[in-house]
Amino acid sequence: MTCTPPELLNWNRLDWNALDAAQREQALRRPAQVTQATTAAAVAAILDEVRRDGDAAVRACTRRFDGIELDDLAVDVDEFSAAESGLPRSLRDAIDEAAARIASFHIAGMTAAYSLETAPGVSCERILRPIRNVGLYVPAGSAPLPSTALMLGVPAQLAGCPNVVLCTPPRRDGSADPAVLYAARRCGVTRVYKIGGAQAIAAMAFGTGSVPRCDKLFGPGNAYVTEAKRQVAVADDGAAIDMPAGPSEVLVIADAGANASFVAADLLSQAEHGPDSQVLLLSNDDALIDAVMAEVELQLDALPRAGIARQALASSRAIRVASIAQALDISNRYAPEHLILALRDARAWLPQVQAAGSVFLGDWAPEALGDYCSGTNHVLPTSGAARFSSGVSVASFQVSITVQEVNPRGIAAIGPCAVELASAEGLDAHRMAVALRLQAVAP
Amino acid sequence: MTCTPPELLNWNRLDWNALDAAQREQALRRPAQVTQATTAAAVAAILDEVRRDGDAAVRACTRRFDGIELDDLAVDVDEFSAAESGLPRSLRDAIDEAAARIASFHIAGMTAAYSLETAPGVSCERILRPIRNVGLYVPAGSAPLPSTALMLGVPAQLAGCPNVVLCTPPRRDGSADPAVLYAARRCGVTRVYKIGGAQAIAAMAFGTGSVPRCDKLFGPGNAYVTEAKRQVAVADDGAAIDMPAGPSEVLVIADAGANASFVAADLLSQAEHGPDSQVLLLSNDDALIDAVMAEVELQLDALPRAGIARQALASSRAIRVASIAQALDISNRYAPEHLILALRDARAWLPQVQAAGSVFLGDWAPEALGDYCSGTNHVLPTSGAARFSSGVSVASFQVSITVQEVNPRGIAAIGPCAVELASAEGLDAHRMAVALRLQAVAP
Repeated sequence: MTCTPPELLNWNRLDWNALDAAQREQALRRPAQVTQATTAAAVAAILDEVRRDGDAAVRACTRRFDGIELDDLAVDVDEFSAAESGLPRSLRDAIDEAAARIASFHIAGMTAAYSLETAPGVSCERILRPIRNVGLYVPAGSAPLPSTALMLGVPAQLAGCPNVVLCTPPRRDGSADPAVLYAARRCGVTRVYKIGGAQAIAAMAFGTGSVPRCDKLFGPGNAYVTEAKRQVAVADDGAAIDMPAGPSEVLVIADAGANASFVAADLLSQAEHGPDSQVLLLSNDDALIDAVMAEVELQLDALPRAGIARQALASSRAIRVASIAQALDISNRYAPEHLILALRDARAWLPQVQAAGSVFLGDWAPEALGDYCSGTNHVLPTSGAARFSSGVSVASFQVSITVQEVNPRGIAAIGPCAVELASAEGLDAHRMAVALRLQAVAP
Repeated sequence: MTCTPPELLNWNRLDWNALDAAQREQALRRPAQVTQATTAAAVAAILDEVRRDGDAAVRACTRRFDGIELDDLAVDVDEFSAAESGLPRSLRDAIDEAAARIASFHIAGMTAAYSLETAPGVSCERILRPIRNVGLYVPAGSAPLPSTALMLGVPAQLAGCPNVVLCTPPRRDGSADPAVLYAARRCGVTRVYKIGGAQAIAAMAFGTGSVPRCDKLFGPGNAYVTEAKRQVAVADDGAAIDMPAGPSEVLVIADAGANASFVAADLLSQAEHGPDSQVLLLSNDDALIDAVMAEVELQLDALPRAGIARQALASSRAIRVASIAQALDISNRYAPEHLILALRDARAWLPQVQAAGSVFLGDWAPEALGDYCSGTNHVLPTSGAARFSSGVSVASFQVSITVQEVNPRGIAAIGPCAVELASAEGLDAHRMAVALRLQAVAP
């Protein structure tokens, strides 16, 4: 163990069983996510502008925020081709490999249509339809994210969505990130627009001359994108959204046998996402916590994004718990986006997990595998939303429609039940709609 | 055919092919649903009051809006027993019968857990968990709705939600509707509170001394309830909601062979829900439209809720189309909550349905069957939300969690792919979390 004092990092190191109820609540509080009133107002202004002026407003925003002048917002065939041919073979292969594995996991989980005779002559069914117009947002702020293009594009393609558009911020030279383009086309997405930020969300929600209007929007983004999604989701002329996105977060439960170097690397790979990312370490072993904190210090120095990670770690916590069972209770209360069980018997603890976006079992499942290529989706509920919502799947790109087909025998069988209930509810026209048919089948 | 002039009802009778684009858009516009600024402000005030003062605020609202003084908001065992024993046997049987059929359809559609080896040594899974704290709202304004208690209570029970609470408005005498209580207990829901309106939504979203705080809220309601759900869904300390609820609506596509009396009864059973309900009739046959309009006039006179239905019909439309195919196109654009295909070959048209909440095939499937007892759920997307969302199912009460379990062989198999992608995205800590493990398995 090194002698680097943990204080260096300004971790909040806590003993859960020494905290009172209020302190415990405080310990699990996410970094304040209050949307600045100025952010909300700025986003509302952008939305109004795009709603009113369409492409002209999008171009003006691109000039203002990205500092470039774009005549053509859409990526054309030549740019796609150039992106593809310019990309290293190893990266193309990695994108193909990840896409195939994501597809295999997502296909296996697709909702099935089904049909059931609920009474003689009454057939009830569920049929599935793709959402017709979907919009994908792929950020490229601090880093372009071809992996996000796969995580959204693969399930959209599997659902069979006929109209898929993708927006991603332009680079300084006015081009789109080539890896994002390659990943998009890999999923059959060829309508890509070089638009970022709130203006991208507005363009897809309201439609512009060049960007078609979308029914539902997907994808992560910065505070402006998140606020724009929130605003279009409640606007009468807006669009549905996949989920309210917040800063990324991981909770690691580690026992005495965990590998401190691995755990530290996992914490850092979350912390480097952004200054508002949150990282929690829960352990029943003081020595392990010491070792992880020391390892974090060691590994931090080698990171290009050390500054960001250091900021994120400042609002993070290392919590000493009495037992692994207690750690699971705390995790269920926090409902983390990512939960790593760095435990000797990780599988045995899985039944205790009640709320999390995605779970990583054991020492050999770093969260980064789920981010890229284990096959699961990396668009996951944050900020505790795992208590009531789930990550993106093919179902996120579909609607389920129920169907009932009834013959005269069927209405005779279940009509009287409906008549009784309609009468109890005082809905006489409901009663009549059934009674008229009952008279017709058995006059 | 009777000679009653259709004008009597102030239907909007239109010929789709005589309309220009703007008129077509106008024809499919829902009755304006602009939330009055006063409604939003009144609801916000109620939410603040309940958030701050808990049960005292709920009691004050109950005094103010329901005109009664309630010491105990919770329904006790005695009230449950009295409700059960006071209910006619025929109604108890109908509730039991409906519950059983709803359960059988919902069970068949439950999402399954699954597991897949996506690479040698990489096992990916989806596991399911019930949402732990759910709140159900069962309206009882113009009519108590025991059927809604079943439509929410049955899937909540199938999902295995450990904590289910139900709010329903008190009656004038301070009791809850006995049929709602019977239906609730039939689904294992025993925590029932006599609270209505925005104060019920606030109590379940924020929690009070007597009402536990809920993660997700379900159920229809009036404009105040809907606005309250909208507000808690975007509040940081609020709760998730099933869907944005709007006024109920039906679209009927009828051909020349349809039974005008049945079609009229179906239109009326939608119209009686409320003055803001919307009803659309599409047909390629003028004589059928004439006959339906005349039948509506005839049947209206016999209805206790004729006044409400008449108001709803005033904003409804009878649209002449050139063909059934055109009617389907229009329906997909409108995305109705309920779609009735009163067609000779209804089943053959089903593949053309792209967006609807629930579909009723043929002459013997009145929408009222789906409302009560065919087995499908009657909590469905309104206001065009069927373009991107689905009705309530067991999945609405669950979360899906993905899991990955990886052994050394697994990280060796897929780690290099993650390393390549992390490098491309400039996320060095992600790369390191994988690379460290790759080194450990193959030094």
